[in-house]
Amino acid sequence: MTELDKRTHERTFVRTFFTTPTAVEGEDDSAKMLEGAAGLSGMEAPDVWVPDNEDATAPNMRDEGAQNIIDVVSEHGADYPGEIHPRVVWHRDSPSTRYQGFQRMLEIADPENGAIEHIDGFVVPEVGDIDDWKKADEFLTIIENEYGFDEGSIKMSVIIESGQSELGMEKLRDEMGKPTNNLERLFMLVIGEVDYTKDARAITPTGALPAWPELRHNTSRAASAAGLISVDGPYDDIRDVEGYRERMTDNQAKGMLGIWSLTPGQVVEANKSALPPAEGYWLLDADGREVELESVDGVEVYDGDRVSLEETDGGYVLSVGTDDLELDEDELTQELLDLLDYVPSMDDIVDSMEEFEAAKEAGKGAIAMTQAATVEIDGVQVDISSDRMWDEATYQALQTPITLFQDVYENRPDQHEGLAELYSEDVVERAMDVGN
Amino acid sequence: MTELDKRTHERTFVRTFFTTPTAVEGEDDSAKMLEGAAGLSGMEAPDVWVPDNEDATAPNMRDEGAQNIIDVVSEHGADYPGEIHPRVVWHRDSPSTRYQGFQRMLEIADPENGAIEHIDGFVVPEVGDIDDWKKADEFLTIIENEYGFDEGSIKMSVIIESGQSELGMEKLRDEMGKPTNNLERLFMLVIGEVDYTKDARAITPTGALPAWPELRHNTSRAASAAGLISVDGPYDDIRDVEGYRERMTDNQAKGMLGIWSLTPGQVVEANKSALPPAEGYWLLDADGREVELESVDGVEVYDGDRVSLEETDGGYVLSVGTDDLELDEDELTQELLDLLDYVPSMDDIVDSMEEFEAAKEAGKGAIAMTQAATVEIDGVQVDISSDRMWDEATYQALQTPITLFQDVYENRPDQHEGLAELYSEDVVERAMDVGN
Amino acid sequence: MTELDKRTHERTFVRTFFTTPTAVEGEDDSAKMLEGAAGLSGMEAPDVWVPDNEDATAPNMRDEGAQNIIDVVSEHGADYPGEIHPRVVWHRDSPSTRYQGFQRMLEIADPENGAIEHIDGFVVPEVGDIDDWKKADEFLTIIENEYGFDEGSIKMSVIIESGQSELGMEKLRDEMGKPTNNLERLFMLVIGEVDYTKDARAITPTGALPAWPELRHNTSRAASAAGLISVDGPYDDIRDVEGYRERMTDNQAKGMLGIWSLTPGQVVEANKSALPPAEGYWLLDADGREVELESVDGVEVYDGDRVSLEETDGGYVLSVGTDDLELDEDELTQELLDLLDYVPSMDDIVDSMEEFEAAKEAGKGAIAMTQAATVEIDGVQVDISSDRMWDEATYQALQTPITLFQDVYENRPDQHEGLAELYSEDVVERAMDVGN
Repeated sequence: MTELDKRTHERTFVRTFFTTPTAVEGEDDSAKMLEGAAGLSGMEAPDVWVPDNEDATAPNMRDEGAQNIIDVVSEHGADYPGEIHPRVVWHRDSPSTRYQGFQRMLEIADPENGAIEHIDGFVVPEVGDIDDWKKADEFLTIIENEYGFDEGSIKMSVIIESGQSELGMEKLRDEMGKPTNNLERLFMLVIGEVDYTKDARAITPTGALPAWPELRHNTSRAASAAGLISVDGPYDDIRDVEGYRERMTDNQAKGMLGIWSLTPGQVVEANKSALPPAEGYWLLDADGREVELESVDGVEVYDGDRVSLEETDGGYVLSVGTDDLELDEDELTQELLDLLDYVPSMDDIVDSMEEFEAAKEAGKGAIAMTQAATVEIDGVQVDISSDRMWDEATYQALQTPITLFQDVYENRPDQHEGLAELYSEDVVERAMDVGN
Repeated sequence: MTELDKRTHERTFVRTFFTTPTAVEGEDDSAKMLEGAAGLSGMEAPDVWVPDNEDATAPNMRDEGAQNIIDVVSEHGADYPGEIHPRVVWHRDSPSTRYQGFQRMLEIADPENGAIEHIDGFVVPEVGDIDDWKKADEFLTIIENEYGFDEGSIKMSVIIESGQSELGMEKLRDEMGKPTNNLERLFMLVIGEVDYTKDARAITPTGALPAWPELRHNTSRAASAAGLISVDGPYDDIRDVEGYRERMTDNQAKGMLGIWSLTPGQVVEANKSALPPAEGYWLLDADGREVELESVDGVEVYDGDRVSLEETDGGYVLSVGTDDLELDEDELTQELLDLLDYVPSMDDIVDSMEEFEAAKEAGKGAIAMTQAATVEIDGVQVDISSDRMWDEATYQALQTPITLFQDVYENRPDQHEGLAELYSEDVVERAMDVGN
Repeated sequence: MTELDKRTHERTFVRTFFTTPTAVEGEDDSAKMLEGAAGLSGMEAPDVWVPDNEDATAPNMRDEGAQNIIDVVSEHGADYPGEIHPRVVWHRDSPSTRYQGFQRMLEIADPENGAIEHIDGFVVPEVGDIDDWKKADEFLTIIENEYGFDEGSIKMSVIIESGQSELGMEKLRDEMGKPTNNLERLFMLVIGEVDYTKDARAITPTGALPAWPELRHNTSRAASAAGLISVDGPYDDIRDVEGYRERMTDNQAKGMLGIWSLTPGQVVEANKSALPPAEGYWLLDADGREVELESVDGVEVYDGDRVSLEETDGGYVLSVGTDDLELDEDELTQELLDLLDYVPSMDDIVDSMEEFEAAKEAGKGAIAMTQAATVEIDGVQVDISSDRMWDEATYQALQTPITLFQDVYENRPDQHEGLAELYSEDVVERAMDVGN
């Protein structure tokens, strides 16, 4: 029996999906950008590199672009640290575009051209409902047969950029595994928000892209149900690192751990973003805004104006925004516990997992993990401490960042140095060891 | 014709789903917790009690747990005021776990053991897509046949804790009613967020569970389409009563009226939460934060700092946060109306329903319901009054809490006393009378 | 091949869905409201007028109402500027209601009655799953055959007011185009939130309707996938123009460009709402609240209290709420750019589209669009400027309001005057020209 919801490809996580134009007009060498991208490594190199022979490349440059893919990948592909998945043209509404996509894949995959051995799969944009996905799958089956590859050995990823394909994702479990297709080759479900917005005819006053939370949930859910990997679309505002990070945090809470990157800078951010921080820290809900406390000599200090704390005769006055609360010590501790949250470091997570594993070994099914701190607001220090129960399910649900880390560490030796800079070697070693 | 979307089981509402470990190691009597829970009644007793022979019970204690269920339920089940639905082990990916689940159900349901006559159904966790649900359904059919029960008489509820089963819920209307299954036995769709989070590989910085709004919508929708009852998963932070209430309010706006309870305290909260309050009250949107006004001698008083009001020569200055608005009396009334909302009491709702019923009797299709109050901010009093049109559709949509109340009153005589303490006897009587 | 996701009816956009009771008791002339509505034109006339022989009309008046539809539409229908789609009774659970709906459609569509030539289709409420939609479709096929109309020539729109029909929408692409139905007649998917709330048994403390964001996403998605038009349900609080506008903005970001209107005033608002403003303006995120800046002699002025700016020796202090930031000029510009957003006018959008079209003509695939302004806070002026990359996909995604405008202009000559009042004639002309 095939278990459709098990991720069966080598990589079970993709953090970064980095696109590069395949041919740029007006340069001496139209493959310059492709060559530059092929040389990336370490934190600047994505998990999946996508030589983009569709939207990023002008239509009249795409024949040249296909040849550039062949040239660059055959030369540099052997040393490339991530997977390589070129994007070709495709459209649910256009048989001629689909035929062009087939021809380009046929050419790029020709073993005589020397690129296909370094290529992991193809990215098919603008798919329609599931029967349209099968057309692309069938072309890949023909290509595999033509060149003597195993059926299903070329991975296929699709871009979800229409309501049609959003609905199509719900049928994967019904269609994968049927004898007349090889849809098990599917690898990533990638969102294309710009075209999705066009297809949906959505309008925002400023022209900004809608947030599409339901689309992201549905894509993550489909990936989970069919053993695939979900990836969010591009974040246009390259300057806005904070916004890119917030989007990734929001995605991660939906189970969508991958995101498109448009620059090596975005690749670095996205490669790190789902990994736990090197240092844990406390967050204070300061009247609706989350503020990170500064750790000073073991005391967690808030020095903003949105929350203030004063010691009085009888107790304390805690002011949040324009609200003043008169509290005794217990009430203050309780109130602060409600406003505070701890973001654990990699080290903290590994510690907790080890502690739970030891407890399980000793026959305990659940243990309390304690988090304590001294918090300082306006010079007043308060000790707080909170417990969280861990059982097997908690343990497994909180294990995801570690499993991700392990997948990265095993598959990306080129990032070992970058990871060692981020975390201590001891933490890396323990993180590789825990949970197995 | 069967109408799949009609709730055909006795209870059409479930507010509370309370789990108890079936066997705890290291106690003199491993069934102690089970016996304690079996003795609950009134507001502390849930609508559905779940002796939990899965996650809450250590794997090596589950055989003993199954026997404990038999012993405790056969002894106390006759007097138990709610329904009893033991949870057994199951997993979409493990035939051995499924077979173990079947064996435990077979044993618990054996009429010679004396428990099954008090058991209403079983809870099946970790189901996969709809074909996996059918496997559990088939085992129950075999059990019913083996012991001479009517086919479909043992209810089945599932825990939705994977993308697979979330998608499976969408197929219920296609699959229920087919001659080869007895899926009409389905009763509750319960969310299991911890395992869902694991399955989705979702990550939050603090390790808190994601809110999963789309999952909750989809579960409520599936329940509504297939005549089932939707129940949200556990709320871990037992201390946080306010947070538990907020979650229930959010769920109720999605049509999900049931929730998991981990303690008798949570059961009390959840048993009351969808019922209208005994006293109505006004809410003020105080610069983005909802604040309940205090009713003092018929005047609704706001005494916070986020909104202030001052009478001037020409009119008024209303300050909301850092914004100051200069208004005349009409503008002030209008502005306050926008900021104020009334939460009706049980009495208010019954009143309005009676008024609408009388109007309908008199041949009117729509009437205006008026809500008036005197509001005081910073010592300044303002009279406000707003109308809301009620027609048949409004009447029916607003009837849900009353229908819930009636379902509770009819099925839970043990709560009559608790309800009489909450509302006056007159209100209870009229609430039982209205809408029939 | 039929392309199911192409909107094949004359109108590809519907902004407004305006219902009128078909017979009101106690008036001299029970058709008075119908006659009033039939006389509307210009911005007060909706894109789709719905003589409502269901919920808006008392059950005992519906026979008379059906006759009124015939009388009023046969007399005034030829001059009516929008489409006419009467709503008849229907219910997924009641064969007698469905049969009544059939009989009323049969009567209204009788060519001898002179109304059908002005009627574009029927609105069918309270549909169930897709097989229930087919029953209504079949009645229309019989009616078409009976009167010698082309099969599929009478459009059909449905009201989504149950979880069942919400799920039904997902099957449209599987069912449309089958030889045994004429579901290609489908035109609008309209949400009915009041009855949906009842069906979902949802409860809110104040009795306000839940926001149902997922339902709106799913409806818009289904419309997009099946070439239909999605329309949101009624907004009850007629006084609350601001709230109505906010709802429409929220809908538009979901691709739902149509909304129910209960009064000619709401029709005017909704007819304008998805169209770009006549004048562009800047928005400031003032501590979580979006505030429109006032344009004074080319300077964009903020004069609220939530954000303040002061020039100091070394640089600037920018205060947002209770946070004070000390910044140099570059940091200030950057910080302000993050807080500011520009809402382009119709003129701006047409300009940008023309600019991109010219660049494309000249062989460029992507160009930067610059938005610059002088912003004034507390008397301090700051120049800001931001770039946005436009490529083909951006161009197409941002084209929607212009495509909508063109659809309106072509189909609603009665609104030319209203549109000319809103925009200059030059802008209208260029807007009709761009993008073709």
